[in-house]
Amino acid sequence: MKLSQYFWYDFKDIKDDEGIVSYNYSLRGGFIKKLVSGIYLWNPAGLRVLKKIEQIVREEMDESGAQECLLSCIQPAELWVQSGRYEDYGEEMLRIQDRHKKQMLFGPTHEEVMTNLFSHYVKSYKGLPLNLYQIQWKFRDERRPRFGLMRGREFLMKDAYSFDIDHEGAVKSYNDMYKAYFKIFKRLNLQAIAVRADTGPIGGDLSHEFQVFAKNGESTTYYDQKLVDYINQENFDIDIAKSFYAMADDMHDESKVPSGVEVKSSKAIEIGHLFNFDTKYSVPLKANVQHKDGSNLPVYMGSYGIGVSRLFAAIIEASHDERGIIWPESVAPFKYAILDGIGLIKNDDSFYQKLKEKNIDFIYDDKDDNLSEKFRKWDLFGIPYQIIIGNKYKNEGLIEIKSRKTGEGKLMTLGDFIQSAS
Amino acid sequence: MKLSQYFWYDFKDIKDDEGIVSYNYSLRGGFIKKLVSGIYLWNPAGLRVLKKIEQIVREEMDESGAQECLLSCIQPAELWVQSGRYEDYGEEMLRIQDRHKKQMLFGPTHEEVMTNLFSHYVKSYKGLPLNLYQIQWKFRDERRPRFGLMRGREFLMKDAYSFDIDHEGAVKSYNDMYKAYFKIFKRLNLQAIAVRADTGPIGGDLSHEFQVFAKNGESTTYYDQKLVDYINQENFDIDIAKSFYAMADDMHDESKVPSGVEVKSSKAIEIGHLFNFDTKYSVPLKANVQHKDGSNLPVYMGSYGIGVSRLFAAIIEASHDERGIIWPESVAPFKYAILDGIGLIKNDDSFYQKLKEKNIDFIYDDKDDNLSEKFRKWDLFGIPYQIIIGNKYKNEGLIEIKSRKTGEGKLMTLGDFIQSAS
Repeated sequence: MKLSQYFWYDFKDIKDDEGIVSYNYSLRGGFIKKLVSGIYLWNPAGLRVLKKIEQIVREEMDESGAQECLLSCIQPAELWVQSGRYEDYGEEMLRIQDRHKKQMLFGPTHEEVMTNLFSHYVKSYKGLPLNLYQIQWKFRDERRPRFGLMRGREFLMKDAYSFDIDHEGAVKSYNDMYKAYFKIFKRLNLQAIAVRADTGPIGGDLSHEFQVFAKNGESTTYYDQKLVDYINQENFDIDIAKSFYAMADDMHDESKVPSGVEVKSSKAIEIGHLFNFDTKYSVPLKANVQHKDGSNLPVYMGSYGIGVSRLFAAIIEASHDERGIIWPESVAPFKYAILDGIGLIKNDDSFYQKLKEKNIDFIYDDKDDNLSEKFRKWDLFGIPYQIIIGNKYKNEGLIEIKSRKTGEGKLMTLGDFIQSAS
Repeated sequence: MKLSQYFWYDFKDIKDDEGIVSYNYSLRGGFIKKLVSGIYLWNPAGLRVLKKIEQIVREEMDESGAQECLLSCIQPAELWVQSGRYEDYGEEMLRIQDRHKKQMLFGPTHEEVMTNLFSHYVKSYKGLPLNLYQIQWKFRDERRPRFGLMRGREFLMKDAYSFDIDHEGAVKSYNDMYKAYFKIFKRLNLQAIAVRADTGPIGGDLSHEFQVFAKNGESTTYYDQKLVDYINQENFDIDIAKSFYAMADDMHDESKVPSGVEVKSSKAIEIGHLFNFDTKYSVPLKANVQHKDGSNLPVYMGSYGIGVSRLFAAIIEASHDERGIIWPESVAPFKYAILDGIGLIKNDDSFYQKLKEKNIDFIYDDKDDNLSEKFRKWDLFGIPYQIIIGNKYKNEGLIEIKSRKTGEGKLMTLGDFIQSAS
């Protein structure tokens, strides 16, 4: 890809970055554009990152045995009336009346619809256990959308729903998600912890929030530091991990901290949430399954969310410096940015063509800026490796491969780079 | 994938198939479920097909030089007021009021928003030509949603928008899409033709619809049969293709048929649409670009849609028999279905594991049904190849690889199949 032909512009004239660095860099770096309050448009480079995040989430969900489906954005109000949540949800729900005066809504979550889908097909224990997930845009009409993608109104979410024969099975499904979430966040280079959380409008009595520490986080989290060390082991035991003191804001109670435990508090960003609510939805929505003994009983459920578009912002919060974003390789829009300060490639296209032939994930900055302007831009954009073609090439035939993260450079010939790059 | 663990159920109790085979088979085959009128849920097997269609569209759009971005579902009404379309669009537009009493809508199309995005960044001829596309869910509040996915309310669309310096450039962009669309439909095994069409609420004066012939089509199309032969050549000339007589319903005029041309008429399904409308949106939305000579003038635009979820139905209409769907390999949910009538794999998992290791795209029907029930089901589901393990295996050690399309079978050993399958 040549930058001169690519729709990617850094944007200096930012009127309001809502006071946080991830939003500032997302706008200045031309990854997203604000349409109206809490609603964003994804430019090609931003979408590349979003899709890589989405794909990592998908792969780990599939690996856990969950199956992807896709529900609609627009839902009928009647399912929510049936579950008893229609009035409860309040003004955050975007309520819509269609041309036939039917009450509809833009789904803020999908417990009702997924339960409806499940019960249409599955009538027997033979169809269990089951975990269905989707990656779909949701809408929550926040009173005051803020912090950019952190608390937008239209946002991309991975939401999974498990169906089990009994509470024990539901807890196993819950634990499978607990494990899968840590794998996802590790691949995204995020240090996450799971803390006990209030269940809010979703309901149930077992719930964990996944948090990443960030000084711009909206939440405060209280936890035993030993938990962080424990979960960073390759294979940890979920029950042991759950037994550490780790609480979301509203669950923390100083008087309940076990003696000898030193509780730390940190600002954090919520990036995932697990809920077990057993039969809360299956009873009103009549999602029963026949058991082996012939009895016909409500199915046991849980739901499991990850804010995919919020992760975009959380990754920036966790990985940046004063010059811009430092994308982890796993989600970077491109792995290499080629900064040609001497017009080498402009005069000889064969280098560009060779990189393309090798399917190298790169973008070539062929704009007429000088190298220092290019450094400013690519440090902001956060591409992991800058391939610098400057005076060293003129004098010694060497290019520099510079890591955005460490700032360290490595000199080599063009030929060696083409050979070794992947 | 083992069918007993997969959320895929054929469904015999179809109350209303809206009179067309694609919807009947989509429901009976458990690919989608109707939520409410014109709104559907995608089960895992249906989503696999939808994503393969989407990916083919994406690859050919990328190949054409277009760049993928992603716009929001919810848009502010004010952009439509500015373009002059807010009142025109009528009741098909799903109008929404948010909690702050702002007028919003669920995008039925994105000319306004894309123009807004473009003009935020591109101010100069240097950023042209440009073609930005997205694959996103749209909503049109049809008075009478019908024919299942053919005319749903919430539907998946690929919509591209081109930006050029002048009319000549805009026509070149238009022609690039014309060419790309034929490539897309060929990969989907659809015989499409492009016919002159009315521009309707999108506007402009140059427009083609892409149609596939289908006896359940909603449109009637009038065309010179020689056109079909011409466009089926490997490399055809767009200007020659455009010169044949080929008209959508509302453009056909018997008196304007050139002498000597024999016009055929066929029922057809519209699957794509090209519009050139030059400065219709850029003028009211003030999307100007600076030219080389310093003048600052409205950019020239076109828009180009493909109904991605409608293609799901159109492919079924074009490829089925009385027993069910016949998916083209390019979009089939799985390439192979393994119908084990003698419990071979149940007793020995190694065959299953070997296929998994080789990354073969297959599903194994491990349910307890007999072979004739399995044939009924897999003929309905439309998987291209059925791998039949039955008496021939017991007696001669041979399995049968049967083509869903031709019905022809080929006998081979399990080992040879594993060797040769891809």
